[in-house]
Amino acid sequence: MDALEVIFTRRSIRKFTGEPVAPETIKTLLEAAMSAPTAAGVQPWRFIVVTDRAMLDAVPAVQPSASMILDAPLAILVCGDTTSETYGSYWVQDCSAAMQNLLLAARALGLGSCWCGIHSRPQREEGIRKLFKLPPEISPLGLAVIGHPAVPFTTKDRYDEAKIRHNVWS
Amino acid sequence: MDALEVIFTRRSIRKFTGEPVAPETIKTLLEAAMSAPTAAGVQPWRFIVVTDRAMLDAVPAVQPSASMILDAPLAILVCGDTTSETYGSYWVQDCSAAMQNLLLAARALGLGSCWCGIHSRPQREEGIRKLFKLPPEISPLGLAVIGHPAVPFTTKDRYDEAKIRHNVWS
Repeated sequence: MDALEVIFTRRSIRKFTGEPVAPETIKTLLEAAMSAPTAAGVQPWRFIVVTDRAMLDAVPAVQPSASMILDAPLAILVCGDTTSETYGSYWVQDCSAAMQNLLLAARALGLGSCWCGIHSRPQREEGIRKLFKLPPEISPLGLAVIGHPAVPFTTKDRYDEAKIRHNVWS
Repeated sequence: MDALEVIFTRRSIRKFTGEPVAPETIKTLLEAAMSAPTAAGVQPWRFIVVTDRAMLDAVPAVQPSASMILDAPLAILVCGDTTSETYGSYWVQDCSAAMQNLLLAARALGLGSCWCGIHSRPQREEGIRKLFKLPPEISPLGLAVIGHPAVPFTTKDRYDEAKIRHNVWS
C-alpha cells in the first residue's frame, strides 16, 4: 500500500471485528516499530504483546479511554527502558516514533489501531504498571489497540497553514 | 512507494546533494506531519520551514550534532505550543508522531532526512529558541534536516526478540 496514502488514511479506529491478528502480522508490526530512529541509536523501547483476553479486558479499569480494547484481539504496550537512556527524556520521543511506525504498519496491513495514552498521567501509569507487572525501570508510554476494523478508513484534512512559519517565528 | 518499504528503509541521512526541495514537496511533508494522531485531537504542533541559507548555517553553533545541515537545502523545526496542551507532556508524543510522519513522507518522496534532537537538552533548547526567536510558550522538539540524498538508502534490521514480552512483563 502506498506510503503517503497510509499516512493520510491512518485514523484512530475504535471498532473491531474480533478476528485474531496472525502471528506473522504481529511480527511485522514489531519490526516496523523497531525501525524507528532513536537518539544515539539506543533503542530504549520494550514491547508487551497482549493477546490474552483477560488481560485485554482488564485494561479499561486502569485506562478508561481504552474501552475499545474490549472488542480488540490485540494490544501492544510500548514501554521505555529508562536505564538504557543516556539522553534524559529522549525515551519518550524514541518510543513515540516506534508507536507511530507501528500504527502506520497496521494501516498498511489493513488493520485498525488506536493509540491510548498512558505517559505521563500518573494514575494510568500506576494502573498499567501493576496490571502488566512492570519493574521500576520500565516506563509505559502508551498502548496500541489493534484489530481488523469494523468501520471504514477515512481521511481528515488536518493541514493548517496557520501552524507554519518561515525561517523565524517572528 | 510501498509503506512498509518506506518504514524499513528510512534511515538517518547526513549527506545531501544541495538541490532545493520543491515548495509542493514541502507542503506534502507538512501535510504528512499534521496527519499524525494527537491526544484529544489538540494538534499542539507548530512548524518553522527553514530554507534561508544563513539560518541553516547558524544551526550547528547551537545544535552541534546537526552539522549535516550545512549541505542541506531545508530543515523543518517541529515545535509544540505548550498553551494548547491539556494533557501535560503529551505534546512531546504528539510532536514526535508528527516528526516521524514527516521523516517517512520524506523517504516516500525520495528525500533523505535526519532527526536532530533538541528537547529536552536545555542548552540546545535555549540556543534554538534564540536563533528562531521562539516565544516562551513555543517549545522546540527537534529539527528535521531534509534534502536529496547524496548516499543510497539502506536497511538495517533492528528487530530484537529480547525486547518483546507476552501478556505480562514477568
